[in-house]
Amino acid sequence: MPAALQMPELELIDHAGLDSAVYLRIYLIGLKIFVPIAFLAFAVMVPVNWTNGTLEHLNLSSKLTYSDVDKLSISNIPIGSRRFWTHIVMAYAFTFWTCYVLKREYEIVATMRLHFLASERRRPDQFTVLVQNVPPDPDESVSELVEHFFLVNHPEHYLTNQVVYNANKLSNLVHEKKKKQNWLDFYQLRYSRKPSARPFVKTGFLGLWGRRVDAIDFYTSEIERLSEEISIEREKIASNPKSIMPVAFVSFKTRWGAAVCAQTQQSRNPTIWLTEWAPEPRDVYWDNLAIPYVSLTIRRLIIAVAFFFLTFFFMIPIAFVQSLANIEGIEKAVPFLEPVIELKFIKSIIQGFLPGIALKIFLIFLPSILMLMSKFEGFNSISALERRSASRYYIFQFINVFLGSIITGTAFQQLDNFIHQSANDIPKTIGVSIPMKATFFITYIMVDGWAGIAGEILRLKPLIIYHLKNFFLVKTEKDREEAMDPGTLGFNTGEPQIQLYFLLGLVYSVVTPILLPFIIVFFALAYVVYRHQIINVYNQEYESAAAFWPDIHGRIVTALVVSQLLLMGLLSTKNAAQSTPLLITLPVLTIFFHRFCKGRYEPAFLRYPLQEAMMKDTLERAREPNLNLKGFLQNAYIHPVFKGEDEDDNDVAMEEPMQEQVLVQTKRQSRRNTPLPSKHSGSTSPSKSRVVRD
Amino acid sequence: MPAALQMPELELIDHAGLDSAVYLRIYLIGLKIFVPIAFLAFAVMVPVNWTNGTLEHLNLSSKLTYSDVDKLSISNIPIGSRRFWTHIVMAYAFTFWTCYVLKREYEIVATMRLHFLASERRRPDQFTVLVQNVPPDPDESVSELVEHFFLVNHPEHYLTNQVVYNANKLSNLVHEKKKKQNWLDFYQLRYSRKPSARPFVKTGFLGLWGRRVDAIDFYTSEIERLSEEISIEREKIASNPKSIMPVAFVSFKTRWGAAVCAQTQQSRNPTIWLTEWAPEPRDVYWDNLAIPYVSLTIRRLIIAVAFFFLTFFFMIPIAFVQSLANIEGIEKAVPFLEPVIELKFIKSIIQGFLPGIALKIFLIFLPSILMLMSKFEGFNSISALERRSASRYYIFQFINVFLGSIITGTAFQQLDNFIHQSANDIPKTIGVSIPMKATFFITYIMVDGWAGIAGEILRLKPLIIYHLKNFFLVKTEKDREEAMDPGTLGFNTGEPQIQLYFLLGLVYSVVTPILLPFIIVFFALAYVVYRHQIINVYNQEYESAAAFWPDIHGRIVTALVVSQLLLMGLLSTKNAAQSTPLLITLPVLTIFFHRFCKGRYEPAFLRYPLQEAMMKDTLERAREPNLNLKGFLQNAYIHPVFKGEDEDDNDVAMEEPMQEQVLVQTKRQSRRNTPLPSKHSGSTSPSKSRVVRD
Repeated sequence: MPAALQMPELELIDHAGLDSAVYLRIYLIGLKIFVPIAFLAFAVMVPVNWTNGTLEHLNLSSKLTYSDVDKLSISNIPIGSRRFWTHIVMAYAFTFWTCYVLKREYEIVATMRLHFLASERRRPDQFTVLVQNVPPDPDESVSELVEHFFLVNHPEHYLTNQVVYNANKLSNLVHEKKKKQNWLDFYQLRYSRKPSARPFVKTGFLGLWGRRVDAIDFYTSEIERLSEEISIEREKIASNPKSIMPVAFVSFKTRWGAAVCAQTQQSRNPTIWLTEWAPEPRDVYWDNLAIPYVSLTIRRLIIAVAFFFLTFFFMIPIAFVQSLANIEGIEKAVPFLEPVIELKFIKSIIQGFLPGIALKIFLIFLPSILMLMSKFEGFNSISALERRSASRYYIFQFINVFLGSIITGTAFQQLDNFIHQSANDIPKTIGVSIPMKATFFITYIMVDGWAGIAGEILRLKPLIIYHLKNFFLVKTEKDREEAMDPGTLGFNTGEPQIQLYFLLGLVYSVVTPILLPFIIVFFALAYVVYRHQIINVYNQEYESAAAFWPDIHGRIVTALVVSQLLLMGLLSTKNAAQSTPLLITLPVLTIFFHRFCKGRYEPAFLRYPLQEAMMKDTLERAREPNLNLKGFLQNAYIHPVFKGEDEDDNDVAMEEPMQEQVLVQTKRQSRRNTPLPSKHSGSTSPSKSRVVRD
Repeated sequence: MPAALQMPELELIDHAGLDSAVYLRIYLIGLKIFVPIAFLAFAVMVPVNWTNGTLEHLNLSSKLTYSDVDKLSISNIPIGSRRFWTHIVMAYAFTFWTCYVLKREYEIVATMRLHFLASERRRPDQFTVLVQNVPPDPDESVSELVEHFFLVNHPEHYLTNQVVYNANKLSNLVHEKKKKQNWLDFYQLRYSRKPSARPFVKTGFLGLWGRRVDAIDFYTSEIERLSEEISIEREKIASNPKSIMPVAFVSFKTRWGAAVCAQTQQSRNPTIWLTEWAPEPRDVYWDNLAIPYVSLTIRRLIIAVAFFFLTFFFMIPIAFVQSLANIEGIEKAVPFLEPVIELKFIKSIIQGFLPGIALKIFLIFLPSILMLMSKFEGFNSISALERRSASRYYIFQFINVFLGSIITGTAFQQLDNFIHQSANDIPKTIGVSIPMKATFFITYIMVDGWAGIAGEILRLKPLIIYHLKNFFLVKTEKDREEAMDPGTLGFNTGEPQIQLYFLLGLVYSVVTPILLPFIIVFFALAYVVYRHQIINVYNQEYESAAAFWPDIHGRIVTALVVSQLLLMGLLSTKNAAQSTPLLITLPVLTIFFHRFCKGRYEPAFLRYPLQEAMMKDTLERAREPNLNLKGFLQNAYIHPVFKGEDEDDNDVAMEEPMQEQVLVQTKRQSRRNTPLPSKHSGSTSPSKSRVVRD
């Protein structure tokens, strides 16, 4: 682990990709924001809060119970006190500091991204644009149509195109064949160990009934049958023009040409010939490529409505569990446990842990639902899917974990009345409950945050899953390998959880600063652990060059604005109304800051400046004047089914019809029979040299 | 006038420009939307409303006064009645019809725009991009820097550039000279008529005191002095590099090159080398060209805050006047007028007209304030300034005229409590008052709409202003000509007013359909009158090719959503709560419709498709292979001060240093002395052939 901490950032980027390196910076930002804030808060606000007697006074008069945490919080200040000015000044100081850190970090990440894009080796996605909604044409195939369109409209830059096949059926067949192959391996292994008893298998459902046959013969014949089906299906895909989707990856001779095509509108009708940067080949989500424009808008509407219902009706079970999971509820339900529960230690565990665990269980199932939603919505790349799921997960957590815990805890009925409250009263209602919930959130941070990190370093969940799999499913070495695969970091679940801690930290920084050290410990631990995991455990699935940063920035700014509004609500109940204009200015300034950052830095994450493209093109031309770019790009964007199959089993190469699509049909025969190296053979990438074989 | 109505649309576009032709379509949309709605409403809803006795019943029991208008409105339906289903069904029908008309119209206007852009003659703005925030460079002038940057990054397309001079001082001098010239003409005229008395003039303030001198001599010498100053200032501008602003108009060899440059990001830093389509030369607002990026965002914040205060503090005087302008107020203030006021005719005038007039007077001063705000905000073209002012004016009218009239009329105090109401209650509060305000808005439509059109056709306001000017200011024929100038249509004031009628029509279509005929008469009259005025009276100041259409569409959709929300509020007070889910669906669908239209049609108004550009380029190359584009573009973007001066007075041509800026400095002398036609002489536009003279 110390080695992991010492690795310099550049090496880390080399080793684990820019995405991971920038992901770690989120934890660093947490430290950068909250460490100075915590020092300031403890130096200034804790004395101001502590030296009041409001809670003691209330305690005497109305027997209100309070903890020491509350004595350090804003609750301890008498109503209408002039000490609230401290909190307002601190709110300003914290806002300015957070904005300063955010701006600096945005700048650094934008530079890192541009630097990464500029200095990395040649990648196919630098030259390629994804063209969607190619209009149907009765006379030409998709490939010809694309070729003609781009030869006309980008005459000096167009290089080649690759069409996309609808390979879902083929993909299923290949998957089935792989499974059967695995069974065959298993039975062959068993037979080689015990040659006396040839293994038998039943052909029916799950091998439980049906005719009893020799296992090795059965699977061999099955595999043969599937291989045949696969090759028929391949033939069908290659010959049937309907299996070509109205989508193409269009490659250009220069980065400049691709940058221009990706950033401009091609056709008079803005819903056809849609162009955008092609995702990295690994990052393409193939199933969504052929969704037409009108369907996309409808899908978005459906998902928006579905997400609304998911978010707001998910709350009912959580509230139900939480209402059970309090001391009184348990004591009523199981009265004989009362003596145990009343022990101070057990009591605090139940009070603190149970609501957190109830939430946790619900949340485990959520990311996959959200991912399904994003897939239905039609994004083209895995990174975009994960970003979208992360946004949704954050909104869900904000409403259900943050607001849900604050409001259901005090009165679940309030939520029902929420839309009946004035815009003015909502921050008040929430703001008032915030100081009371500090203890709950401290335990939540410990249960969810600290324990989560501990679990992460021990890899408890994957360990359990691995052993379960090993026991029930693993049959061959290949299975074991697959079960061992640690997978990827999971941006769609990890990032929203970090954001929740940003939200908690910013909201409580002014109200109950005692929460800050817990947040800081979380960020520090998480940074160390995830740095280790990223370097030593996780694999990188794709590289989006930190395309997620605008989301991160936006969410931290949102948390800041929420914290300001809640503070406003809280102070307005403390008879500090004269401070309202000052407090309104704060979110206005913060939103203005956000808009400034958006204009200043976001384009670096959406567009590719022509100056950069031209620079790289010129450099490359000078260094490698004889580069065969066409060979390099020819097979970059092939459906993984064709690619994988080809590498594993040396089946008839599927790329062959694709690579020749760009040539006129009649030339195919002649080229096939020519033993001379074609112009395609100059491919520089070794992994692609297989093409020459055919 | 009949001739104006018979002119076909294509001819109209030719005659008055696309902007005007599309502007007229707004009135037509009003007719297209409201005529069928009115028929349906009168056929279905009027009988449903009329055949109830609620108001009569209330009248008997609580002596509520009501007019016949109210009997036709939704107020006449008893609370909780099942007849409200009619209104909900009608709300759906009206929404679908409106959306259908809007979509069809958006499609037509988008096609008209693209057709106009494609078929019109060659214009400099097709080839030119406005580049702002050119970074400072110690070694190169702005023009050299721009040249180098675009030669590197758009090597095959860059043609030439024109820098922008800071000519504010020069502009003032030229203006002063023009004024003096006018006085000279005036005195010369007087002298020629009465040669016996040579005119004298006093040199002091306004000619009231000071030394008495011979007028003709004085003005002749003054003009000479100013001419000298002007030429010195010109020299200074030409020689001083600081008078060149970090802005340039960059022209390309092809429309394709310009389209690419306008739609892409140039530099790594997205706040420098900002490119956008150059506005038409007439349309450029020169004073704002050099505002840096950071200053722009700050200006926007300041104006947003200022507009907020303007909108919300403007209401106080209006409410004050309106509270005076009711019968009881007047009777109290001037009791001796009571018998006159109590006459039925006078009473209705006072009740109807006075609040309208009070608003009207306030609104007269508003557009110029909003225009100043837009100018401060830093838009580059007059059309953008007008669009922005129109948006602001609409928001202002919505809050102050529409909401203000509804709420102050019933209770001004409600407004103060507005932010203290729940999101649920706001539509309720407004919705409830809407049926009661129908009479007021009918008179408002007559006073503001009908009378406004009558005034427009008589051109009352310009007539009065003309005669005032003629009496006080006109001295020479030139002055009279200027005073006669009808000016332009004034999009920034006209369009928001039309939108108010859309809002009224849509809001009242379900509630009080009797208002619809008044709206229809307004739209029909306005269409006829403005068609006449556009053809025969107004001048065209610029041509933005209907760039304002997305705003129009957006505002009508907003009006639709507002009408749906208010209907929801109204019905929820009528115990028709079971209809709420149906009514919530309506705005969701409408907003979805808006997003769909935005994605489908808006790009036609923001971007220029490469396919079109390429098509036009190819056509042009085929037709005019020897076109000298450089000559055509050379002087297209010259500050009007230089241009105007040059045309009127044949002063030393200022364009000369500019047109040669693109050449290397040393070549200037040689070219100047060459009598042969330079390559610039091939200019095709006759107005530009003046260039050859030098």
